[in-house]
Formats: sequence, C-alpha cells, structure tokens
Amino acid sequence: MDTPYLLVDIAAAVAQYRRIAAAFPDAPVYYAVKANPEPTLLIELVKAGCHFDVASRAEVDMGLEAGAPPATLSFGNTIKKAEDIAYAYGKGVRTFAFDSLGELEKLAEHAPGATVICRVLASSKGARWPLSRKFGCAPEMAVDLIRWAAAHGLDPAGVCFHVGSQQLDPGRWEPSIAEAAAIFARLAADGIALRLVNCGGGFPVDYQTEVAPIEKYAAAIDAAVSAHFATRPALMIEPGRYIAAPAGVLHTEVVLVSRKSYADEPRWVYLDVGRFGGLAETEDEAIQYRLTTPHDGAVTAPVVLAGPTCDSVDILYQNVNYELPLALRPGDIVQIHGTGAYTATYASVGFNGFPPLRTVCLPMVGGDADR
Amino acid sequence: MDTPYLLVDIAAAVAQYRRIAAAFPDAPVYYAVKANPEPTLLIELVKAGCHFDVASRAEVDMGLEAGAPPATLSFGNTIKKAEDIAYAYGKGVRTFAFDSLGELEKLAEHAPGATVICRVLASSKGARWPLSRKFGCAPEMAVDLIRWAAAHGLDPAGVCFHVGSQQLDPGRWEPSIAEAAAIFARLAADGIALRLVNCGGGFPVDYQTEVAPIEKYAAAIDAAVSAHFATRPALMIEPGRYIAAPAGVLHTEVVLVSRKSYADEPRWVYLDVGRFGGLAETEDEAIQYRLTTPHDGAVTAPVVLAGPTCDSVDILYQNVNYELPLALRPGDIVQIHGTGAYTATYASVGFNGFPPLRTVCLPMVGGDADR
Repeated sequence: MDTPYLLVDIAAAVAQYRRIAAAFPDAPVYYAVKANPEPTLLIELVKAGCHFDVASRAEVDMGLEAGAPPATLSFGNTIKKAEDIAYAYGKGVRTFAFDSLGELEKLAEHAPGATVICRVLASSKGARWPLSRKFGCAPEMAVDLIRWAAAHGLDPAGVCFHVGSQQLDPGRWEPSIAEAAAIFARLAADGIALRLVNCGGGFPVDYQTEVAPIEKYAAAIDAAVSAHFATRPALMIEPGRYIAAPAGVLHTEVVLVSRKSYADEPRWVYLDVGRFGGLAETEDEAIQYRLTTPHDGAVTAPVVLAGPTCDSVDILYQNVNYELPLALRPGDIVQIHGTGAYTATYASVGFNGFPPLRTVCLPMVGGDADR
Repeated sequence: MDTPYLLVDIAAAVAQYRRIAAAFPDAPVYYAVKANPEPTLLIELVKAGCHFDVASRAEVDMGLEAGAPPATLSFGNTIKKAEDIAYAYGKGVRTFAFDSLGELEKLAEHAPGATVICRVLASSKGARWPLSRKFGCAPEMAVDLIRWAAAHGLDPAGVCFHVGSQQLDPGRWEPSIAEAAAIFARLAADGIALRLVNCGGGFPVDYQTEVAPIEKYAAAIDAAVSAHFATRPALMIEPGRYIAAPAGVLHTEVVLVSRKSYADEPRWVYLDVGRFGGLAETEDEAIQYRLTTPHDGAVTAPVVLAGPTCDSVDILYQNVNYELPLALRPGDIVQIHGTGAYTATYASVGFNGFPPLRTVCLPMVGGDADR
C-alpha cells in the first residue's frame, strides 16, 4: 500500500473508550471529535454509549451522521459564529460552552433556553501540549457571566476547564475543581444552583514513555471533588487523545538518509510524512512518538528526522535525541505509533503538492463497522 | 461570499513576475509553484514566459497541465522518492537538485544523463522564515558529489543555495556566490566545467513594512557574481513569495471579541481563519501581515489575534503588538494583505471540522485566464 497512511484500529479505540468510561463511572464521556473524526470510529463509539464534544458545524453533522442523538452532543468550542450556533440548535443540540459576554449574547439570541457551561481559565503546567490563555475567563468574570446567562433565558449548568492536552500530572485537575467549587458557592448565594463540572480532557497516553494509568487520574479527580464540594456535582469528561491516539499507527517510507558534511554529525532521515502531512504535534518537538523500523535490534545512531517538503520548519525531531538503525535505507517502512489522534485532520490540503494523509480503518471484528 | 476566502489577483502576480524578470535580465525565473499552485496563475505565468521550480510529482503535473514545456521545469526538492524521479524524467523533466550521495544514486539510476544541481548549505541569517540545515551540504562534500555525478553519467551543471525566505538583507547572497565560485574553481582543476549558479528565492515583499526594491537585490547579486567569477556563469532564480504574496488578500470574519478578565488586558479577537486554516507562517509570529478593517481610522487598542479552532497554538499574534479598532464587532470583515503565497495549500484538510481555505481568482482583464 502506498505510504504514507494512518492505520486506525477501531476496536482499540473502543477499548480505550470502555476503559475511561469504567474509570469514571459517574461522568458521561464526551469524545472530542476533533481528535479523529473518522466516521467508522464515531459510529462504533455511539454504539458503545459515547457522547461527543464537537468544535464546529461540520462536527455537529459528523456526530449526527454517526447516529448520536443531538442531546448527546456538546458544542465545546467557545468561539462560534452566530449562524453555527443557530444551525446546531436547529439540529437539536442543547449544550454549549462559552467564556465571554459576546458569546453569551449570541447564545441567548440563537439558542434560547440552552444549557450553557462557562469555561474558566486553568493552568496547563505539566502538559505536553499546553493550552495558553486562548480559552476561558477569570473566575470573577465567570460569576458575572453565569448571572447574565441566568437572567437572559439560558440554563447555566456549571463550569468547564481544560488542564492541557497530554497532561502528565494527575494533581493538575484539583486547583480548577477547587475554583469551580468557589464559583458554585458564590452563585448559590445569588440563588443560582449550578450542578455540573466538566473536567475536560488532557488524559495522557503512552508515547515513548509509559504514563500513569487512567484510574490514577480518575481517583485524583474523585478525591478533589469530594474534598471541595459538600454536595457532589455531576461530572463530565472530554477525552480525545486518550481514546484515539493509541489506536493509530502511521506508516511512512524513508525517502532519503544523508549527511550534511564529513563531520561526525547525526544522519538526516527524511520520511514521506512530516509536520504538514499530519505530524503537526511535533511542533517544538512537543509530542515525541515511538518509532519502529524493519531493522529494530540492529545498531543505532543519532538522527535528525524531517519531512519531505521544501519547508525548512518541516523537521520532526532535531533537539530531542532520536536514534535509528544504521541499516535504515530509502524505501524502508517506519511505523509511527500512537498517531491515532490529532494527525490526519491536521494534514495540509496539498502543501508542496503532497496529498493529505489517508486513513485506513481496521474494522471491529464481528461488528458492522464497514457498513 | 462566505468567509474565509483568499482573493488572488492574477494580473498582480504576473506584474510581479515581469518586474523580477526585468530586474534579472540574464537569469530565467523559475516560479516556486509551492508558493501558490492555483491553475489560473500557472497558466498566465507560462504565457508570460515563466519557468517553474517544482517540489513533488503533483507539482510536475501542475506545471505540465498549465502548458509549461518539461524543459522549463526544475525539480528543486532534494528529497525525492525514486519513483517520483522516474515519473518526472518520463514526463521530460531534465533538471534536478540534490545534496547527498543517496539522492545522486537515485538520479543516476532513474534520470540518466539529467542535469543536476548541487545544493550547498547557506546561512539564512536575516530571513524572516529561515531555512535551517535541512537542505544543502557542506562545500567540501559538494565537490565530491559533483565529481561522483560526472563519473556516473549525470550532467552536473553547477550549484544552488537558498538564503531563507523573506530575506531582508540584499548582501546575504554574496557569501554563497563566493562559495560557488570556489567550488567552480576546485572542479575546473579536475576538468569539470560548471556553468550555472542557482541563486534560489527568498526575495522579500512588503508586509507591514516596506522592503528594499527588487532591483537592489538584483544589483547586489550581479555585483557579487562579477566580483567572484572571472568567467560569468549562467544564473537562475526561484522566487515564490515575491510573485504570489502581494497578489492575495485573505478575507476573514470576526467571530468573537472578548476579554479574559477585568484587568486592563488586550482584547482577544478571534477570526474565522487561523494557523491551521492557511496562516501557517504566523508560527512564532514570523510573518506579520498587514490588516485592514471596516473601522480603519477609528480609535484602536492592542489585541491578541487568534483563529477559530479549539487548539491553543492556533494564535496568530500575541507577542508582537497588533492594534485594531475598538469598534470591531463579530461579523466584521478583516482583510489580511500579502497572503497570496504560502497560505491556501498550507491549510489543514479539516482540522476541527473547518474546511480548507478557498481561493477565488480575479482573472486577467482582456486575458483568457478563465478559459
């Protein structure tokens, strides 16, 4: 089969869903469709009982086409066009996130009576793919916005936050849970009874190194909720990477192995996939994937890994130390593991003339994933 | 018209081609197709006499489909699959770049007798989008590779280099021209007569600030060639940005204007296009586009500018100081100027469900660009 392509094992993703759902028995799981919106995957997740976190009008459609009831969709992007809010509402979506007055004004007009969840700024220290200040507002502003929502015909259910993707520290959820409890208490004094804490995503997966099991994150969140809330709120979570990443293996071909000079420098290994072909999360070498080759076990030496385009920022790993077998040759297949999330849809539409990354699904055995 | 879209003025791009061709009367111009491969643009450039620098098999096809004779295509990517070399050769392409023995071996086998040009490492100090060490080899290695090419049935014509894209310093070409002259001299002693210096691209355009006119870059290159070569070599240049960038205006809509807290922070302005929708060159805020809005002339204040996806790295400008009118509201159209190059093809195929950036061409007046 022509490389590059992403092989997605649907059963493996569904197994990840079941594992995180079991670890959080009281929290419905909203899969972040953006991680990997492959239709076969969405269909199987719906059958398994999964809900969806959607980021755009197109993702609303993807969820519905996969068979998800509209009530199980949460429009989690805090940056929505008025017409996209109206579109989702027209399709029956009733849960929306916001973090500003501008967004609430649109929701009050185009999604009257909808359940709205206020995103609060959170620290993403400890995350491999941190979340900056782009989403969320300060707690004192959240309190005012929730008051505004309640006064304008919306149903403010609670707060959400996100601690950053591939968050390695199980303790990182607690400060935001404590903040949520404080917001609940301040609004209870106004007679506004909040009921929901959306703990977002960020749950990590094994790339080159093993991370703590998901049960450890669930226990830390459970303990934090018990510690900070007298009355336990409803919870929800929005994993994307955790469900999809381990299910994907990107198959790529070595195009060239070269040296830049006669000095004792690392070899350069050029693959037929790079940062603009689906490996966008190698920006700043943030996500460090595990690689296997046909020569595993043979003698290795340091390499710089790069993609096939004429763009010089299309380098995967240059500062972190990757080693690959000295026997590696053009035409060899390299497998990049853990690439089921945040890869195929990131690929450029045709930069340098290279086509986007293809996805090939390994359907569920005994299922009807190939219908 | 629904935003976002990129409006490309074909006549403006052709005018840029004519201007750079006039500035370099002795150097054929190979337009770097990757900058913007819009078919209408390529057709008009062929009619105007432009040659093409292509980066992939698909770009070979694009050039030929636009009517370019295969002899006017240069396959400038130094990272090519063997089958793509064979494909291009089969279509009549006879000029290829290389920077390693691995690539030469493929060329000797799959493009026998072809004209080959050795890419040499160059400093890209002074460039807004620098070129790292991904392409090129050290001069002493170049000498050996050119000897190898001559001994294996290839036609080594000379050397190429690239000083980095949006290179602001006209003096930056000279060190590489001097190095080329030294390589010519060393190989002349072996009886290998090189004849061509490919000065690459990098010629800058006006974004927020005006750059020196192209004639100044041409004069600096001309003077450097005269200074370092006793016998003047043939030259070629590969502009991409210079031709396409000024011809494009990206039309985007404001989705949201918000604040994160009650502190005196900049407003956040979210557009319906971002880093994954075509503005990839805002990575590290490298390319700083000029913006216009319907409220220009009104009072402005600092902003952080961001795109519409749920990805927190989808921020355009946060550290450089952008100011936009306080009157700016959701639904307002913002025009992003100088976006004709390195935008539409960089767009993701569907990250977060957002479709790739559309291109709309303003055809040549009196021409047949719309055929």
